[in-house]
Amino acid sequence: MRAAVMYGARDVRVEDRPDPKIVKPADAVVRVVAACVCGSDLWPYQSMPVTDTGRPMGHEFLGVVEETGAEVTGLKTGDLVLAPFTYSDNTCDYCAKGLHISCRNGGRYGFDGVDGGQGEAVRVPYADGTLVKLPVAADSALLPSLLTLSDVMTTGHHGAVTAGVGRGDTVLVVGDGAVGLCAVIAAKRLGAERIVLAGRHEARTDLGRDFGATDVVAERGEEGMARIRESTGGVEKVIEAVGTRQALDTALGAVLDGGTISRLGAPQYELGPLGRAEFMRNITLTGGASPARAYIEQLLPEVLDGTITPGRVFDRTFALDQAPDAYRAMADRQVLKALVAP
Amino acid sequence: MRAAVMYGARDVRVEDRPDPKIVKPADAVVRVVAACVCGSDLWPYQSMPVTDTGRPMGHEFLGVVEETGAEVTGLKTGDLVLAPFTYSDNTCDYCAKGLHISCRNGGRYGFDGVDGGQGEAVRVPYADGTLVKLPVAADSALLPSLLTLSDVMTTGHHGAVTAGVGRGDTVLVVGDGAVGLCAVIAAKRLGAERIVLAGRHEARTDLGRDFGATDVVAERGEEGMARIRESTGGVEKVIEAVGTRQALDTALGAVLDGGTISRLGAPQYELGPLGRAEFMRNITLTGGASPARAYIEQLLPEVLDGTITPGRVFDRTFALDQAPDAYRAMADRQVLKALVAP
Repeated sequence: MRAAVMYGARDVRVEDRPDPKIVKPADAVVRVVAACVCGSDLWPYQSMPVTDTGRPMGHEFLGVVEETGAEVTGLKTGDLVLAPFTYSDNTCDYCAKGLHISCRNGGRYGFDGVDGGQGEAVRVPYADGTLVKLPVAADSALLPSLLTLSDVMTTGHHGAVTAGVGRGDTVLVVGDGAVGLCAVIAAKRLGAERIVLAGRHEARTDLGRDFGATDVVAERGEEGMARIRESTGGVEKVIEAVGTRQALDTALGAVLDGGTISRLGAPQYELGPLGRAEFMRNITLTGGASPARAYIEQLLPEVLDGTITPGRVFDRTFALDQAPDAYRAMADRQVLKALVAP
Repeated sequence: MRAAVMYGARDVRVEDRPDPKIVKPADAVVRVVAACVCGSDLWPYQSMPVTDTGRPMGHEFLGVVEETGAEVTGLKTGDLVLAPFTYSDNTCDYCAKGLHISCRNGGRYGFDGVDGGQGEAVRVPYADGTLVKLPVAADSALLPSLLTLSDVMTTGHHGAVTAGVGRGDTVLVVGDGAVGLCAVIAAKRLGAERIVLAGRHEARTDLGRDFGATDVVAERGEEGMARIRESTGGVEKVIEAVGTRQALDTALGAVLDGGTISRLGAPQYELGPLGRAEFMRNITLTGGASPARAYIEQLLPEVLDGTITPGRVFDRTFALDQAPDAYRAMADRQVLKALVAP
């Protein structure tokens, strides 16, 4: 099969890889119908050391079940299924709590002999625990929005949930990438009355307004924080959807004492501000990697009936062989989020 | 009047200071009946640079109202009152939310011309907003327990509240100082079923058992974390009552993914672990400086009827002139918490 493999910074290649086969009885092989490039794929794209072996890329995909292992009971060949961005058994103590991201048997696509999602097919471990059957045809116009439930929309939702967003709230979303925009959708559906989106790419913040943002702040740093404080009187709930120290500092500068910052962007730093100042202000830091699997059924009905349309974050589709272009376009900010169709 | 003043590390002196007078119409002057030394006083006691002017010490006290300013309506001369460890107007937006520690007009004793609590008298700004009238006589046997509501018990309570402790929970309290022990009381009264106290001073952990700790872990570092994980299967709620990086690391090592760490110890570090590992584990960091004023009325009835007896943390009483001995005894861990009686 063909699949995207990263060999170092700005070096993604589409090449022939072995066709996936059932290895363990809980596996399924899924023929990919649609995949995409994640904002988090751009971090290695910008910094990965050169490697000879390469790293299969992609962790967001949906497709059709091609083959199932002997223990798989909930899926059959021909089912259209959605994969959350990590696999999980859905039976361990963490999964039982809805924290599938910490599954005792879980793991990441592209590691430990598991294929990446940006390819023609994927062997999915713990298929019954991982995959969610989709009640639409493989050519449904809803596929892009359904695909966002693999990661970006369930991640935005995780931010709104862990920030404790509820009816009437004022919420700040830092970052106008696809996760930030999905966090706007999530905050709105949880009842936020005022949603301030901090971002400077007008096409993106315009989409954010469509999704429910009531205010857009384009200024950065001190100026941006001052604008946010001025226009809102300060916010109690912040969703940080970038992952840089600067974004975290913006969140800290804008949030009211006693407020909550939910981090969604994979942090590009090891140490962060946890000193006396943050302590005296009673800032809560929460969030983290989304347990996407836990949220899919919850959001699925609203995607199916069109209440939410997160698939609008995809602004260009690439054939699988153009995956290197998809990375380049996203890294150069010409594309918000790239859909990859094998 | 006589008052304790710190001039540098391990240099506390009791000396003559001007008698406090009403400066602003919202002030009251309180004649101190009982004060105490806080664990947080020990940080400057160990590290404060030498100063010529000195810093009046103490922020936990109760006493009798001696004089009130023209605007004070809720208190009168002769009232026995408790002071939370910061003053606050009780009317600003933060106070309205119960976050008195962030009061727009609030401040700390011993700073900005306000007396410290370890002295014969204190001018208390925003007296109506700050002071809580106590329905007992000035010689009540309950005074030590009432005094803990100024800081240490309301701080322990803040930890249990922000950690989200509820019925049936397993809670880890890191640190067997007075705040940790009060956090045990707080966790128990909020319904925790199992309370693991991490501490190595047997007299203190014994008191912790009296207060409701079901398990004591004396081992430190990796060994301690392993013991905690073994005996509990991991905990979801941790109260960190020390303030060192080591204590935070113990909390991080013991907490389950998706768990909450509430920090009560004033952090002796500026940067803490907020990288990819903590992000992937969905750890929530919360807590901070307690809004003591918000909790006093809530806990007062249980102190008055003897349901909780946090005053047992005081294991020695010093006369005001012995304040230097009180500091030394606490710093050298001969005394858990020193009561100072002018």
